[in-house]
Amino acid sequence: MKQGNAKEEGSILGIEGGGTKTSWILLRPRGQKLAGGVVGGSNVMLVGRDGLRKVLREVARKLPQVPSAIGAAFAGARGKKEMEMARGVLRQVWPRATKVVVGQDTDSALGAAWGVEDGFLVIAGTGSNVVGRVKGRKYGAGGHGHILGDAGSGYDLAQRAIRAVLRERDREGKAPALAATLMAHSGAGDLDHLVREVYRGHGKEWLAGFAPGILRAAERRDPLACRVVRASALELAEMAGELAKRVGVRRPRWALTGGLFQNGFYRQSFVRALRGIISGTEISVLKIPGEVGAARMVAGSSLRVGEEFDTERPLVSVG
Amino acid sequence: MKQGNAKEEGSILGIEGGGTKTSWILLRPRGQKLAGGVVGGSNVMLVGRDGLRKVLREVARKLPQVPSAIGAAFAGARGKKEMEMARGVLRQVWPRATKVVVGQDTDSALGAAWGVEDGFLVIAGTGSNVVGRVKGRKYGAGGHGHILGDAGSGYDLAQRAIRAVLRERDREGKAPALAATLMAHSGAGDLDHLVREVYRGHGKEWLAGFAPGILRAAERRDPLACRVVRASALELAEMAGELAKRVGVRRPRWALTGGLFQNGFYRQSFVRALRGIISGTEISVLKIPGEVGAARMVAGSSLRVGEEFDTERPLVSVG
Repeated sequence: MKQGNAKEEGSILGIEGGGTKTSWILLRPRGQKLAGGVVGGSNVMLVGRDGLRKVLREVARKLPQVPSAIGAAFAGARGKKEMEMARGVLRQVWPRATKVVVGQDTDSALGAAWGVEDGFLVIAGTGSNVVGRVKGRKYGAGGHGHILGDAGSGYDLAQRAIRAVLRERDREGKAPALAATLMAHSGAGDLDHLVREVYRGHGKEWLAGFAPGILRAAERRDPLACRVVRASALELAEMAGELAKRVGVRRPRWALTGGLFQNGFYRQSFVRALRGIISGTEISVLKIPGEVGAARMVAGSSLRVGEEFDTERPLVSVG
Repeated sequence: MKQGNAKEEGSILGIEGGGTKTSWILLRPRGQKLAGGVVGGSNVMLVGRDGLRKVLREVARKLPQVPSAIGAAFAGARGKKEMEMARGVLRQVWPRATKVVVGQDTDSALGAAWGVEDGFLVIAGTGSNVVGRVKGRKYGAGGHGHILGDAGSGYDLAQRAIRAVLRERDREGKAPALAATLMAHSGAGDLDHLVREVYRGHGKEWLAGFAPGILRAAERRDPLACRVVRASALELAEMAGELAKRVGVRRPRWALTGGLFQNGFYRQSFVRALRGIISGTEISVLKIPGEVGAARMVAGSSLRVGEEFDTERPLVSVG
């Protein structure tokens, strides 16, 4: 009888697995938080079946009760194969769960933003991506990685800034002020040293690490930084606007997420560009974490979440 | 006495060392060809001291006589350290040479184009570069490699074309005709497969290998290919024009070299863009090989070369 009640009262486990960390939250059916935490990375392409099992068992050990429904989204879950693998491991770790929904990391982000309802989401961090759900179907634009675009991402910002600085040196014979910002971050003594560092193969995260300095320079109104940030944000806004137009949504609503949107100059540049491309839209910055979004993948928007997760009020028009 | 005469009549050895091959030519003082050939690569950064000695000894074994002057240009000879190393090895292999001039690969290209006189050179192959000599001093723009620009290069063309195709698919919901050209080259069955291939780390030469197909598509007037080629060539032309303006040359003369300029659509796009940026210029496609340019580094333009090396007549204005 106690067992029966526990099932009836069943709690919902939300899991968002990224490359460096896996966030999880256990919620009551109405959304009250029972427990939550962070364990190691679980990009399913990187960790594989055994690695995923290890991470999920660690989560299981920390749970105060067995969940009856699980929503789990993983980075790297691009194809059916990875989805099936993740579902299999989840079933293995929690054989008593009655409902298991598996998705990509963009699914948990969409869930965090709009539950199971329609809406669009723009992600701008190390990479960038635009996704949207329209009449229950998911659409996307961009997100092709750093070599093929990722417009408006931290990587894109860094690449544009270094190019712009080199170009200005070519043109003017001396480097602009922004060069000092870039060199300070990389520890390079001069621009040629910086160029050599870029080719030493530090990887895309290293290059994306230039973005915070560039964004701060833009807030200080460094002209080159402003130009670079505006151009980068504009390209992402164009991608977003084009996607909404293609799928025939006249008044889409947008949630923005990822580290770059925390910067006022970037956010304003993006919002201004987007409003110039597609009018009458509601734009808000997403504050609900991905693990709650993952829980919403299985429980829907009926899952009310506490005040601490409320989305920010829609940004007032800055167009 | 015969020894003395041999020295007086001294022949000139020109060597251009690239990543995959080293071309050499032995010339009489007036420029008549005595011998020539190709051996393995000698990018000095890649092969090191011992590798360079091995390559140069192979050239020495093939020479019908000992050169009295040597002009040698090597890819990877970016700093003083590499230059000194190359000079040391040349002196070791040919201790009886009375004059040895060492340079970068852009020096032999400039030498091929303009001897020791002033002039500009635009290189567009896997990478791109603009160099110029003004009042004996060398200036450059671009050439910062594939991550930081290389506008107008084969790599740049390929990257732009794939981005444009993905963007059009995002916008229209279906891929444009150019996608088929790209997939045919990569052996990919669909665009997502192509994207995965790009990230499999085939390297920049692999990506630049898409360029010939894109250029052929532009000659067939594929609209997306035309747009991509024009935009890429324009950016290179802008870099070239800006360099000439910065160093204060009002009527620069230009030599064009590298595989991309062999394509009519590309060449025309570039020339048109350059004429729009800086007027009254003479533009010709370089036909003199780099090893002759290397010989000119030591012998100057007084080194007459045979008909087979004559530069093409300056292109007629296409502006």
